[in-house]
Amino acid sequence: MSGTVVLAFSGGLDTCWCVLKLREQGFEVVTVTVDVGGIDADERESLAAKSRALGAREHRQVDARQLYHDEILRYLIMGNVRKGAVYPLCVGSERSLQARVSAEVAAELGAGALAHGCTAAGNDQVRFEIALAAAAPGLEIIAPVRDLGPRREEQIAALTAAGLPLPAGGGLYSINSGLWGVTIGGRETLTSEGSLPEEAWVRTRGAFADLDRRETLRLGFAAGEVTSLNGEGGAAIELIERIDAIAAAFGIGRGIHLGETILGTKGRVAFEAPAATLILAAHRELEKLVLTGAQIRIKESLAETYGELVHGGRHADPACRDIEALFRSSQERVDGEVTIELRPGHMMVTGLKSPWSLMGASRSVYGESAGEWSGAEARGFSRLVGLPTILHARIGGPR
Amino acid sequence: MSGTVVLAFSGGLDTCWCVLKLREQGFEVVTVTVDVGGIDADERESLAAKSRALGAREHRQVDARQLYHDEILRYLIMGNVRKGAVYPLCVGSERSLQARVSAEVAAELGAGALAHGCTAAGNDQVRFEIALAAAAPGLEIIAPVRDLGPRREEQIAALTAAGLPLPAGGGLYSINSGLWGVTIGGRETLTSEGSLPEEAWVRTRGAFADLDRRETLRLGFAAGEVTSLNGEGGAAIELIERIDAIAAAFGIGRGIHLGETILGTKGRVAFEAPAATLILAAHRELEKLVLTGAQIRIKESLAETYGELVHGGRHADPACRDIEALFRSSQERVDGEVTIELRPGHMMVTGLKSPWSLMGASRSVYGESAGEWSGAEARGFSRLVGLPTILHARIGGPR
Amino acid sequence: MSGTVVLAFSGGLDTCWCVLKLREQGFEVVTVTVDVGGIDADERESLAAKSRALGAREHRQVDARQLYHDEILRYLIMGNVRKGAVYPLCVGSERSLQARVSAEVAAELGAGALAHGCTAAGNDQVRFEIALAAAAPGLEIIAPVRDLGPRREEQIAALTAAGLPLPAGGGLYSINSGLWGVTIGGRETLTSEGSLPEEAWVRTRGAFADLDRRETLRLGFAAGEVTSLNGEGGAAIELIERIDAIAAAFGIGRGIHLGETILGTKGRVAFEAPAATLILAAHRELEKLVLTGAQIRIKESLAETYGELVHGGRHADPACRDIEALFRSSQERVDGEVTIELRPGHMMVTGLKSPWSLMGASRSVYGESAGEWSGAEARGFSRLVGLPTILHARIGGPR
Amino acid sequence: MSGTVVLAFSGGLDTCWCVLKLREQGFEVVTVTVDVGGIDADERESLAAKSRALGAREHRQVDARQLYHDEILRYLIMGNVRKGAVYPLCVGSERSLQARVSAEVAAELGAGALAHGCTAAGNDQVRFEIALAAAAPGLEIIAPVRDLGPRREEQIAALTAAGLPLPAGGGLYSINSGLWGVTIGGRETLTSEGSLPEEAWVRTRGAFADLDRRETLRLGFAAGEVTSLNGEGGAAIELIERIDAIAAAFGIGRGIHLGETILGTKGRVAFEAPAATLILAAHRELEKLVLTGAQIRIKESLAETYGELVHGGRHADPACRDIEALFRSSQERVDGEVTIELRPGHMMVTGLKSPWSLMGASRSVYGESAGEWSGAEARGFSRLVGLPTILHARIGGPR
Repeated sequence: MSGTVVLAFSGGLDTCWCVLKLREQGFEVVTVTVDVGGIDADERESLAAKSRALGAREHRQVDARQLYHDEILRYLIMGNVRKGAVYPLCVGSERSLQARVSAEVAAELGAGALAHGCTAAGNDQVRFEIALAAAAPGLEIIAPVRDLGPRREEQIAALTAAGLPLPAGGGLYSINSGLWGVTIGGRETLTSEGSLPEEAWVRTRGAFADLDRRETLRLGFAAGEVTSLNGEGGAAIELIERIDAIAAAFGIGRGIHLGETILGTKGRVAFEAPAATLILAAHRELEKLVLTGAQIRIKESLAETYGELVHGGRHADPACRDIEALFRSSQERVDGEVTIELRPGHMMVTGLKSPWSLMGASRSVYGESAGEWSGAEARGFSRLVGLPTILHARIGGPR
Repeated sequence: MSGTVVLAFSGGLDTCWCVLKLREQGFEVVTVTVDVGGIDADERESLAAKSRALGAREHRQVDARQLYHDEILRYLIMGNVRKGAVYPLCVGSERSLQARVSAEVAAELGAGALAHGCTAAGNDQVRFEIALAAAAPGLEIIAPVRDLGPRREEQIAALTAAGLPLPAGGGLYSINSGLWGVTIGGRETLTSEGSLPEEAWVRTRGAFADLDRRETLRLGFAAGEVTSLNGEGGAAIELIERIDAIAAAFGIGRGIHLGETILGTKGRVAFEAPAATLILAAHRELEKLVLTGAQIRIKESLAETYGELVHGGRHADPACRDIEALFRSSQERVDGEVTIELRPGHMMVTGLKSPWSLMGASRSVYGESAGEWSGAEARGFSRLVGLPTILHARIGGPR
Repeated sequence: MSGTVVLAFSGGLDTCWCVLKLREQGFEVVTVTVDVGGIDADERESLAAKSRALGAREHRQVDARQLYHDEILRYLIMGNVRKGAVYPLCVGSERSLQARVSAEVAAELGAGALAHGCTAAGNDQVRFEIALAAAAPGLEIIAPVRDLGPRREEQIAALTAAGLPLPAGGGLYSINSGLWGVTIGGRETLTSEGSLPEEAWVRTRGAFADLDRRETLRLGFAAGEVTSLNGEGGAAIELIERIDAIAAAFGIGRGIHLGETILGTKGRVAFEAPAATLILAAHRELEKLVLTGAQIRIKESLAETYGELVHGGRHADPACRDIEALFRSSQERVDGEVTIELRPGHMMVTGLKSPWSLMGASRSVYGESAGEWSGAEARGFSRLVGLPTILHARIGGPR
Repeated sequence: MSGTVVLAFSGGLDTCWCVLKLREQGFEVVTVTVDVGGIDADERESLAAKSRALGAREHRQVDARQLYHDEILRYLIMGNVRKGAVYPLCVGSERSLQARVSAEVAAELGAGALAHGCTAAGNDQVRFEIALAAAAPGLEIIAPVRDLGPRREEQIAALTAAGLPLPAGGGLYSINSGLWGVTIGGRETLTSEGSLPEEAWVRTRGAFADLDRRETLRLGFAAGEVTSLNGEGGAAIELIERIDAIAAAFGIGRGIHLGETILGTKGRVAFEAPAATLILAAHRELEKLVLTGAQIRIKESLAETYGELVHGGRHADPACRDIEALFRSSQERVDGEVTIELRPGHMMVTGLKSPWSLMGASRSVYGESAGEWSGAEARGFSRLVGLPTILHARIGGPR
């Protein structure tokens, strides 16, 4: 084999080893890191340095945070999407986009092949294969780790032999960091029985050191998107990053996701999603104030599906575009401000305001005064609304 | 009018006033309090005393906690049922049962009428009407408060004039307490903007006084029902009460429920559901370990509906029996133990064990070793599983 | 009472009686007939004549067929909406629009009240009340038939006494006719046991007279809307009317709808929906060719809800706008031509063509040649795709 | 290789070729045909003869019709299950059971391997792999046709060379016949454009020869299962076979199924399902009479999922057991008789009777007399039931 291959590059053991392997096979390797958040200036530099040291012809870093927000994150917020009622798709949602952006780089460079470092044991291989086949049908896809199945020691030996630096933290935990959270896999998550030790958490480490801290935040939303923090406006990405920092300091958003993998086995991973946890909770409550019950039921019924499609790597399926159209329509009135109180490990939505409040729209006050109707009307309603249930009971008694 | 009327009696202002009103209308009044938890010996005595003082012919107290658990609570647990992803149906779920049990007392006494003290402004009138019409088609239903619409001052004056004791806490907050939690309505919940002051909480008051407390619990489940706490077995009701006490001391399960009422307006109510919050979280995680993804998806899709039927007072609808049959079937393997760590305001499921673990069933370890399949098989799977998405892209590019 | 009242006028016994009653109450009556199809020139004239004879101040006829198509029908098609898998919402879908248009006439005339002739026994009263309260919050709504409950003989006597013509067919059957079909209620539909006699059908009467007839139609669709018939283009309304005439002659679309009414009882009504039946069948098959499975599943899950909202008179609920946004998005590629064979009482979709065919997009031919994948890849897929099921069986055997 | 292999044997080209191939590989071959309907005495004998001629050690025929009914068909009826609103799962539903029964034969014979003749191009390979892995984890699965990919001519040559009879109809169409229908694949179904010629249909061929025929059937149901035909009782299987013969003569149940295959491509197949079409239509209408709307909505929402699981070969997933529990519960009152009129190509449910009729339970007659409620109550209901929609409109006008 020969020619140029674009390698989706995270700087971890697997992708580092791939550079060597692909060069060995005669490829010119261009490494691409698609930044969807969580990469600071130091890490950016370190990635470039590693790529150079490994003999890649070129390293590219693409800032895809805005794209990630516009195409994916804002829909995850609109849909209040979580897997298993817990996990805000911290990582799964990034992969399809990273694959697609990598394919665009390949196209730009005229590369005929694209490589990824995914193993045979995880979800990411599936996400890459689908996204690449959809975005770049002609591109050859190479998965050296999955197809050759090198042992870990073998990989380390190869890197060492080449006089190359071992990836930092080659370590105890496998960590993925992005705008929407961090996932952490390690010894404790390989079975169902344990949790991480305090020092293994990444963003929320030490959050329980000062237990007396309290803070009250106000989150502003317009058309379902975050537009302000404590009254101060800003770009969505920047606000999310600021909210993440505050919420992380309170230990908000720690959890362990246990679920069926795309492959059909059960997998478990720890996560920290401070901003995601806080924003999703606030957004959901605001929706309760301004959307009709019918709107909420419909959105809920689709959120699960949307989450599965995105998590499953099928973000390119037109079904996602269809659901996004519904989500956008539903957010027309999701405007207002949400107040949240924070304590270490604790978050509570305490108040809501919106110009579109359906609570404010009514002349009734729940449990206090009917206003909107008379006692006789309420009686009429009460007698008819359960009629199917009553008729069923009438002919044979309730079961 | 004359004859005997059975009055569903909570001892609050509305039902006390009803005793007077019904007697004024010539009825012999029998008060019935259906206990679904949350009533201690003192309160039991106080209810009987009030009833006597108000001139009721007789007071009955029915312990329906076991029935409540067997017919309703265990299904709320099996279904992980919450309204709006937050509220565990603390109160709504009790009413249908209380109505039905009251109707049974009426039948036993040969009473031709049953009265409830619900206003025109809330959900409970609907629940009573439906449950009574289903359980006792021939019974006349009287709703003096809804139909006559007395003002609060009028009610207080009537009770005072009769030399009768004013209900305690005629108070700032309207409180409902049961096995599955407390609801608290008051000034702050009449609009969307505020939360309760610390002193207004009932079960969790003071939970944040000692911030250094920590505790680890182990909850045992068999066929989806709670069967042990920290390795010690017990009856479900008793275990729920013990768990509630522990979790309440940590401030677990505080929240504010905002949702569409049965009547169609938006309503808001504070709640404390310590045991419910803890048990539901533990149960859900255990299910993730032992149920297939298909099972979980199906259960989730029905939980919302089940919650709405129960909350809406249609517990007698045979649709509830159908869903319960599915829930029972799904719990066959929901056996095991769940570990939860508690801090003030914070709860985290940290570990799970089950003889039916699907995680343990596989030779693969997620993200670590395939085991269950080869790299080539994973490649085949990856290539086919997203085919519809890929074919769509092939003829027109992803949208 | 006095002033001007706008009366939604169908020319049937109930609305004729309403004119008299409202005049008796001192109102100036303006009758409005909102045409959503099924009214020819003769009937138009007859409606105006009746209104005059009854003493209405003015009669208005509004052609709302295009509006009905654009706001409702096209979404019923996009969604393949039927109640109970059978009934294409022939009538229920019209009412909300008729109410809204009538309210617009009232606003134009400065009328402070709007009357409808619905009884207490049917769905239409609910549809009118909701649509009017949503469209014209300040308008007084008068429902003389429901609220006064006149007996049929009383109504006939009043009309006769006033020397007014009895509505034609004061007849055996209550008939509603529109662009999307006819409903027919009568003696046979009052219980569950019988069907209509041949002579009671309206559009399909005599369809089984010539059993040898056969015809093949080609229906063209663009973005999910009907755009041609046998290769000839035309406006949607006109095409629907032409298709209806052809299909009616073959007896297509006869049925009896049995379902839960909005009020909670079961109701039964015969219907004829020739165009609707044919178009929905053709459209659904075309979707199967061009939409991904995920798209179809999502649409199906919403169609039921959309049908219930529209049927239930809640077309103004924003949930309908949200679903419509999804429907529109989903139809982007629903372009092509569908061939249908007709025999008396029989219809079969025999062929489909589309530039977006997903069947054509694949190199595989189902059941014939893999093309798209190798035997080894198929094996990999087969082994993994059922893994959750297999793991469940592995630890305990299939239940 | 050596030892005994059990081959799931249909007598078609692929499975005949498999006998030769497996013997060539050193196996002793035992052919097993699992009869799920559609095999008469002649065919039974012919299968045994072919097996002998091909050199199999033994042929087994297992009558699994009752099992097929009890474990699968009755649930397809209870759930009104159809794919794409059209196709009653004629074939897909059989495979999992055939695989499992074949595995039982293998266990009984102590065979270590099981072979199937599925190709790489269709759904059946997936169904076999999953069902076998679930039912018999230790069994080796051999798929000679998929894995070796012989060309058709090669297969024919091999059979001829061995002096063996060519399977009849080696023919133009690939036909599968069972209790629940026939599927027919051929030239016309390889693209989306055509239908079968009249002579290619199997059970309904010639149904349109005598256009004047008419017949009225009465189908009796008890707990959702077919228990009588025209008043005469019988076993379910026998009744289904009799209904199939009658309906087939009227050409009922012809169709073409177009849908997403398990593999992700679109596939198309003609089918004839006379009994299925008639029974499902009758059953669904009976349910409308006796189930509450909530029950029906829930069943409908699960039917799609159940169909996909069964069609997808995951019948062993416990999710199927869960849904079946719900289905059984829902059928408690699905008792009664349904009248259906037949003409060539046409079927109409004309009447229904049930002791549990909810239509009969009400004192109201839809559209005729309220009975169950007063005008004032209806007014109260009408005003409240659409309140969320109205409140939304109140603050911002309908969108």
